[in-house]
Amino acid sequence: MFILSSPSGAGKTTVSRKLLEADSNLRMSVSVTTRPQRPGEVDGKDYHFTTNPEFDSMVAEAAFLEWAEVFGNHYGTPKAQIAEGLERGEDFLFDIDWQGAQQLSQRAGDDVVSVFLLPPSIGELEHRLRSRGTDSDEVIAGRMARARAEISHWDGYDYVVINDDIQACFEQVRKILAAERMRRTRQTGLIEFVRGLMQEG
Amino acid sequence: MFILSSPSGAGKTTVSRKLLEADSNLRMSVSVTTRPQRPGEVDGKDYHFTTNPEFDSMVAEAAFLEWAEVFGNHYGTPKAQIAEGLERGEDFLFDIDWQGAQQLSQRAGDDVVSVFLLPPSIGELEHRLRSRGTDSDEVIAGRMARARAEISHWDGYDYVVINDDIQACFEQVRKILAAERMRRTRQTGLIEFVRGLMQEG
Repeated sequence: MFILSSPSGAGKTTVSRKLLEADSNLRMSVSVTTRPQRPGEVDGKDYHFTTNPEFDSMVAEAAFLEWAEVFGNHYGTPKAQIAEGLERGEDFLFDIDWQGAQQLSQRAGDDVVSVFLLPPSIGELEHRLRSRGTDSDEVIAGRMARARAEISHWDGYDYVVINDDIQACFEQVRKILAAERMRRTRQTGLIEFVRGLMQEG
Repeated sequence: MFILSSPSGAGKTTVSRKLLEADSNLRMSVSVTTRPQRPGEVDGKDYHFTTNPEFDSMVAEAAFLEWAEVFGNHYGTPKAQIAEGLERGEDFLFDIDWQGAQQLSQRAGDDVVSVFLLPPSIGELEHRLRSRGTDSDEVIAGRMARARAEISHWDGYDYVVINDDIQACFEQVRKILAAERMRRTRQTGLIEFVRGLMQEG
């Protein structure tokens, strides 16, 4: 389970997309949310959209690996989806905030690798948010406040990458993913491989 | 501190050389040894050659980060050399066996990353040792026995890489080194960087 977090505008979405394109064994974890579906969003791809009562009953059934409330909306990662994928040997990419990252790291421990992307500067972050050109000053001020709050949790992550350049940042994150797969404890079949070596000849 | 171990013939020497060539911040840790100097070996580069009494007095002074006896010869890593280099921000590459790796991991804990290279098969390992063309059957049998003994300690390492192809193996080891440098806890200056971000604007 590979967690990628960052403040809005620090490149998380682009890096996630590039990772998924480059790595056929990596799947996006699709969250369940009570947030209203936005135009262009696909149910089951961007999110699994659900109602408050349904979300609450999933919480009651302990059906989430992690869940959080952000601005009155609920977001959660369903256990079943992840368990089935991991069973098949797939890796999952999580685009979640620090609350979700913290819960997932606590519950899944060594199975989780978490990466936090930082902007090169706050000025650059604001510039990126403004250059989208769609938001009012007020909305941008709100996003900047949230970005600072998110950044303040940088020290809960295993890895930190400063996103000066999106391609370099993607390549760095990809190296982390590649390296983590070479960890002895993550390589399935290694015990059998070494047993085979020792019995050979 | 980056430890690279492998049985003889599994590529450790070549991968080490390539890493040192590719990475200007990586230095080889030069061991102190009581083993006789061989033709072509340079004192202070390949090893620091010393006498048994001198080695013993360094042990008595706790001057070694790790030391081991192999076939009657002593090998040790002097603390002072490493401490000075790390202080300057350098990383060290250790070409040591499982005994040294175990001691170093125990004593320096989180500062150590260890990688074990495995041959694709025992037959291939023997083929590589024979193709050097310099050793008798008896010497090769001895090397193979040692190789098996070394392989049996594979499970004390953080990472395991199977050396099917020397260039691919080097690139994998290089990714491990790159990723480990992105660990939050290894990045000096990150606290100040984030403090700067939070104060900005």
